[in-house]
Amino acid sequence: MDAALQAKVGRDGILVVVSADLARCRAVPGIAATLQQALDDWAQVAPRLAEVAAELDEGVAPFEAFDEAACMAPLPRAYQWADGSAYVNHVELVRKARGADMPPSFWTDPLMYQGGSDSFLGPRDPILMANEAWGIDLEGEVAVVTGDVPMGVSADEARGLIRLVMLVNDVSLRGLIPAELGKGFGFFQSKPSSAFAPVAVTPDALGDAWRDGKLHLDLLSFINGQPFGRPNAGVDMTFDFGQLIAHAARTRPLVAGTIIGSGTVSNRGPDGGPGKPIAEGGMGYSCLAEVRTVETLLQGQPKTPFLRFGDNVRIEMRDAVGASIFGAIEQTVAEYRPQPVAPEPVPAPVL
Amino acid sequence: MDAALQAKVGRDGILVVVSADLARCRAVPGIAATLQQALDDWAQVAPRLAEVAAELDEGVAPFEAFDEAACMAPLPRAYQWADGSAYVNHVELVRKARGADMPPSFWTDPLMYQGGSDSFLGPRDPILMANEAWGIDLEGEVAVVTGDVPMGVSADEARGLIRLVMLVNDVSLRGLIPAELGKGFGFFQSKPSSAFAPVAVTPDALGDAWRDGKLHLDLLSFINGQPFGRPNAGVDMTFDFGQLIAHAARTRPLVAGTIIGSGTVSNRGPDGGPGKPIAEGGMGYSCLAEVRTVETLLQGQPKTPFLRFGDNVRIEMRDAVGASIFGAIEQTVAEYRPQPVAPEPVPAPVL
Repeated sequence: MDAALQAKVGRDGILVVVSADLARCRAVPGIAATLQQALDDWAQVAPRLAEVAAELDEGVAPFEAFDEAACMAPLPRAYQWADGSAYVNHVELVRKARGADMPPSFWTDPLMYQGGSDSFLGPRDPILMANEAWGIDLEGEVAVVTGDVPMGVSADEARGLIRLVMLVNDVSLRGLIPAELGKGFGFFQSKPSSAFAPVAVTPDALGDAWRDGKLHLDLLSFINGQPFGRPNAGVDMTFDFGQLIAHAARTRPLVAGTIIGSGTVSNRGPDGGPGKPIAEGGMGYSCLAEVRTVETLLQGQPKTPFLRFGDNVRIEMRDAVGASIFGAIEQTVAEYRPQPVAPEPVPAPVL
Repeated sequence: MDAALQAKVGRDGILVVVSADLARCRAVPGIAATLQQALDDWAQVAPRLAEVAAELDEGVAPFEAFDEAACMAPLPRAYQWADGSAYVNHVELVRKARGADMPPSFWTDPLMYQGGSDSFLGPRDPILMANEAWGIDLEGEVAVVTGDVPMGVSADEARGLIRLVMLVNDVSLRGLIPAELGKGFGFFQSKPSSAFAPVAVTPDALGDAWRDGKLHLDLLSFINGQPFGRPNAGVDMTFDFGQLIAHAARTRPLVAGTIIGSGTVSNRGPDGGPGKPIAEGGMGYSCLAEVRTVETLLQGQPKTPFLRFGDNVRIEMRDAVGASIFGAIEQTVAEYRPQPVAPEPVPAPVL
């Protein structure tokens, strides 16, 4: 990227179009400076981005080598992040481990929480936490970015308003969740900044793998280089993204650039029960809370620890020939030490 | 506003500086096009906005008449809206009416929920709802806009990071709350788009009324022209805005432009019990749920209905000489009828 453009990298980054093989990219300041700008004006902008993508796939210059490690999140700050729990199997399992039945309505009425969207992590940013004892966990998920969604949209209509698909690590602090949910107002401190894979992909570019508002590919998770999960994101997803968007838009419109998450991807075992670890031939898991739940159910107590400072998490998805589709989330957990904030004397305008 | 500038009004509106008496305003495209842009670069921008404000207060041209009814919300779409429940008195009362004790920790650990920030209503926008039976309610609140807040900030430090103060109507759907909170993930459909008063004001411009991280003025609410509430927002506020911001930033940073709400403003009665209606000489209420709670406690059941289609809500705050500080929120409730969404065929770029 040339120096003049590099100097313009601000809070929202710079939009680059990436070839399907993630080898080449081109900044497109003449089309849209940022991804949010493209989403704001999608009907006009998308065809022009598609032309650039086709050129990059054919190797037409100008382009430069795509470096996924240099990327911010596709939307470094977004106007909305609403995360569903579409793999109801996972919800039932977690509740079972603490002896709580699941209300039958959970199979028909999606669980969804409003997340913080102001400070997303890039794919290689560390997970900085002040306290290891908070129970730091990954949650591997698929997410979609919507266009403008009118209030009261149907699930069918909503499927047509999905602009992009992404991968997310919905970092969670398990030790803070029970007390926070006990207060009755949902997650807040227990859901710190989420991280995103570097590349957001259009549904059409996913081919057959994208159908029925679901992404039918394995979500691969690794912890410290060891395979941890490979559940298929299209399996056991009780609510598709169209239904999740319709749920979110029941009483209010959603602005273009809204991100809707699937919740932790989770597959049942072949017998309908809890899935097995990859080491035992199973599909594994997309969060530590789930393996700990399975351990609790089978052995009376969890044995896998949560993440510790220095641990590394990798999440990605590969196509039929093994090529990475979104690039990888790869993050290391590290200790955060707050710095004192210097007071800033600022004059007083009246706005 | 000249036609060229008018044509640039987009999703984020156009920043205008307003005189303290709300009589004059001036667009400042050479300083910052939108309020978010000003917040992104506050240290550089704020002194220049202050100069314009001083000129407007002295009547220095150019300016035009300020029309609060033409305003969007100060941040029509924001990166974060986190709403506290700082008037713990109100929380205790609502719980008492349904026979639930309040945990003692509620006096020391703030309640806060993550709200939707992508589609805020302007001060005169209607409250459009598909169903009157959802129990449409106002919630009159004070809110602050922060600068960039580092993770782990102290309450003291946070007070110095408050850039602007606003008024908000946190529209709530009471009929949807019990089932939604029962699911355990907090509010979502029960908290539709919030509305904001037209003018955001710096803490310094509030003079003595702003102290200890609280706004010590009466919040005036009217329903269909009748006075409904006048509680003092500085009284019975258990957690000040510094504490609320520190709570929000415990496990993640907050980006400039984050909006933190106080929760429904509520004062106890002189005897420490529930406050009385204005018609009975009391301070009244800032939401219908509270008067219905008081009615339930005193008379066994609520008698005041929730808002109906055609009802009008007005929320504002006045200074010592009776002048409006933020301009008024004034909204009418109306029926929403969804329109079918036309499918948009869009080509497929790979981003």
